[in-house]
Amino acid sequence: MTQESLKRPSDATLDALVRIVGEDHAIRDPGAMTPYLVEWRDRYFGKAALVLKPGSTAEVAAILKRANETRTAIVPQGGNTGLVGGQIPFESGHEVVVNLSRLTHVRNIDLEGNTITVEAGLVLADAQAVAASAGRLFPLSLASEGSCQIGGVLATNAGGTAVLAYGSARDLTLGLEVALADGGVWNGLKGLRKDNSGYDLKDLFIGSEGTLGIITAAVLRLLPRPAETVTAFAGLCHLDAAAAFFSRASEQAGRELTAFELMPRRGLDFVLKHGTDTRDPLTSPHAWYALLELSSPREGSGIARLAETLLSEGVEAGEIEDAVIAASLAQERELWRLRELMSEVQKHEGGSIKHDVAVPVARVPEFIGRANQLVELMIPGARPVPFGHFGDGNIHYNVSQPPSMDSAVFLANWETLNAAVHEIALDLGGSISAEHGIGRLKRDLLRQAKQPLELEVMRKIKRAFDPNGILNPGKLL
Amino acid sequence: MTQESLKRPSDATLDALVRIVGEDHAIRDPGAMTPYLVEWRDRYFGKAALVLKPGSTAEVAAILKRANETRTAIVPQGGNTGLVGGQIPFESGHEVVVNLSRLTHVRNIDLEGNTITVEAGLVLADAQAVAASAGRLFPLSLASEGSCQIGGVLATNAGGTAVLAYGSARDLTLGLEVALADGGVWNGLKGLRKDNSGYDLKDLFIGSEGTLGIITAAVLRLLPRPAETVTAFAGLCHLDAAAAFFSRASEQAGRELTAFELMPRRGLDFVLKHGTDTRDPLTSPHAWYALLELSSPREGSGIARLAETLLSEGVEAGEIEDAVIAASLAQERELWRLRELMSEVQKHEGGSIKHDVAVPVARVPEFIGRANQLVELMIPGARPVPFGHFGDGNIHYNVSQPPSMDSAVFLANWETLNAAVHEIALDLGGSISAEHGIGRLKRDLLRQAKQPLELEVMRKIKRAFDPNGILNPGKLL
Repeated sequence: MTQESLKRPSDATLDALVRIVGEDHAIRDPGAMTPYLVEWRDRYFGKAALVLKPGSTAEVAAILKRANETRTAIVPQGGNTGLVGGQIPFESGHEVVVNLSRLTHVRNIDLEGNTITVEAGLVLADAQAVAASAGRLFPLSLASEGSCQIGGVLATNAGGTAVLAYGSARDLTLGLEVALADGGVWNGLKGLRKDNSGYDLKDLFIGSEGTLGIITAAVLRLLPRPAETVTAFAGLCHLDAAAAFFSRASEQAGRELTAFELMPRRGLDFVLKHGTDTRDPLTSPHAWYALLELSSPREGSGIARLAETLLSEGVEAGEIEDAVIAASLAQERELWRLRELMSEVQKHEGGSIKHDVAVPVARVPEFIGRANQLVELMIPGARPVPFGHFGDGNIHYNVSQPPSMDSAVFLANWETLNAAVHEIALDLGGSISAEHGIGRLKRDLLRQAKQPLELEVMRKIKRAFDPNGILNPGKLL
Repeated sequence: MTQESLKRPSDATLDALVRIVGEDHAIRDPGAMTPYLVEWRDRYFGKAALVLKPGSTAEVAAILKRANETRTAIVPQGGNTGLVGGQIPFESGHEVVVNLSRLTHVRNIDLEGNTITVEAGLVLADAQAVAASAGRLFPLSLASEGSCQIGGVLATNAGGTAVLAYGSARDLTLGLEVALADGGVWNGLKGLRKDNSGYDLKDLFIGSEGTLGIITAAVLRLLPRPAETVTAFAGLCHLDAAAAFFSRASEQAGRELTAFELMPRRGLDFVLKHGTDTRDPLTSPHAWYALLELSSPREGSGIARLAETLLSEGVEAGEIEDAVIAASLAQERELWRLRELMSEVQKHEGGSIKHDVAVPVARVPEFIGRANQLVELMIPGARPVPFGHFGDGNIHYNVSQPPSMDSAVFLANWETLNAAVHEIALDLGGSISAEHGIGRLKRDLLRQAKQPLELEVMRKIKRAFDPNGILNPGKLL
């Protein structure tokens, strides 16, 4: 089932859909629709027959019921921050965008049970803030947290920098409310730690990118806020040292190790060159850097001493050349900013071909080594900037163009390089999408990456949930 | 699709199935089959046309292919320790038991990636031992760990005493290999921390009780072994104090709080009366007890001091009347044994009607209070012994008969009492099965407990995976 098989809805259908949300919350004018049809990096431009902004779960369900009856394609959309085009309609103009941003209620906070029940349109940073003002931590944290919404976060099983200790969106979700293709509403909003009563529908919807149902609300887990945090920045002599030092840190710190990010010198050079108010925290350059964070919900946990022990043991073992521990909150922010800027500064260095792969943690150095060799063979002079969530085995393997090359010529290698890099990741037991999802960007790649049997099982599930193929057709599958 | 709709396989089919595993690994003799047809508490007795013990994933797949072609019902079975009858065939004698206990290989240990790949027949305690001998922890721990097998543990999403900090079987599983109804094998044995490439099939199979496929192998997470553990036993004046003290402990200790179990005085009385080598750790009796464990993967974590702080703050706040911290490994074992014996000692007090419910953690006291009132109304003199995993909101709400009542008369109330207690759990947003699953025991209850729409979605999934209904028919759904 692809987008092409669904035709443009009739005017009567469009009018009926508008009546569900009211004229004030429907956009028919193509110009006014633009913000909902354009991806923020301008990579995807779509068209739509209509943009609807429902104000309740019942309205979302009513839209789906009518869409299902009339075979109208629906594109669910949250904060429109996705990186794989899952939230953008295709070019046909036949689809209807259902934007969830009006569903922003915090339905419940249970401080004893450590849960929060929120609607899909709540911005992630607002969910974090509500948790914080209740003295709790909602740990999910990503670059787009200021605009991405809980519904999209869950539909794509978003990751980020806190996955190492707290897990992905999936791991932080206890229950869901989902509007189904036929207009039914599944009320799975239970805040239970344990529930072995039937199939795990929750995890099937999470990460299904709006192709099985539209998430309208969720029960999320809250955790104690850290009382102590230690942030350290270590210069490493070589990539294998990152693996050895990560093993050392995770073995001793367990889940007090709340972040372990990897950065190459080239990436730091880019940040120092293009980022405002940045400085190299260490006196001389190193081939690789680890940014690590330890945290504990209690005072007197001894994690400051632990960080010093880890770093000095790392130096003795020849893993670390030099390191610094942040002495203030301001220094912590400075260190994190080096990591956070690493993606955006690359645009100042010309074209960049990107990957979001995962491999088993122990295979990360091998993956980067093989991919770097390959890049040098395929595009001599191209500059790999592999960085990211080392502790999750998740590397954003970005490649900046050779300085002198024409950007368009370089970017023409996108698919060929993708295919070759993904082959290495798959060969190492990895995934072609660690945290960004499939959307439309990787739909064809998925067909190559997955066992045919697995794709067939996925299609069977899709047909069971959405026999008319109205839910985000042409995305993911 | 229920067991009744499938007829007895022909002799030719049975012969073909036997040839797949070889005569040495097939049991046709009804007498020799008995251990595979009887549940360990003698609650369920089934019949089977055949018991097969395949020696490889390929043999499991070949069995399913033939069974699917011939509409032969298959009952997957691991260590036969389940509490809801999911692993026992019905009385028709038409079903074929597929026992996985020969699949015991440890396929891989990845110490850097902290994963272990094991086959479905490996006994849980053996998996724990392999992890321990590699210097790691596989935290899942349950009463039946000496005989339950990984396949069954995953098919039922087993829980146990370590769920509070480490999660259920689901949370400790990174990948699966599953034989499907049509004989295909899904190879999902990736040891990735992050993988957003398509629907989450893993979590759909986990907890599906063998109705969607047969799990043949799994990649499990390993964790650092605790370097320090502190076990404490606290006497509480009332049930609400358990909730307040749990909040205090979890807020300060975070995930260093690795167990928080609840026991009533009556349960402790039963243990002291019927358990060998047991003694009351405190000098006078208390209405309720909390058994808590703190642990850390590192020396010098300060959790001993933390435990003392928590207990003294609990005393000051009027939550705790008296408490003891284990001073040795032997004392730790003694304290845990009081909890572990709590289920089995109840049989010495006559008939016991059992429940395995979950409610949001904050509602546990309310649940127990309402259920106790109800029991007193329905069966005056009956003795509730609610105990279990307080920190997970999971209470084994067991009720011992009035001392003078005839056991059969008391047990005749099983279903009526179940229905009433489950109604309270559901009313509080809870579940009728927290960790034991549905099997055949709670299949009819499930139909009452779930939203019809949810049951319909589950049936659609079942039909998509097993259109001929050969996989554990009549269980769960």
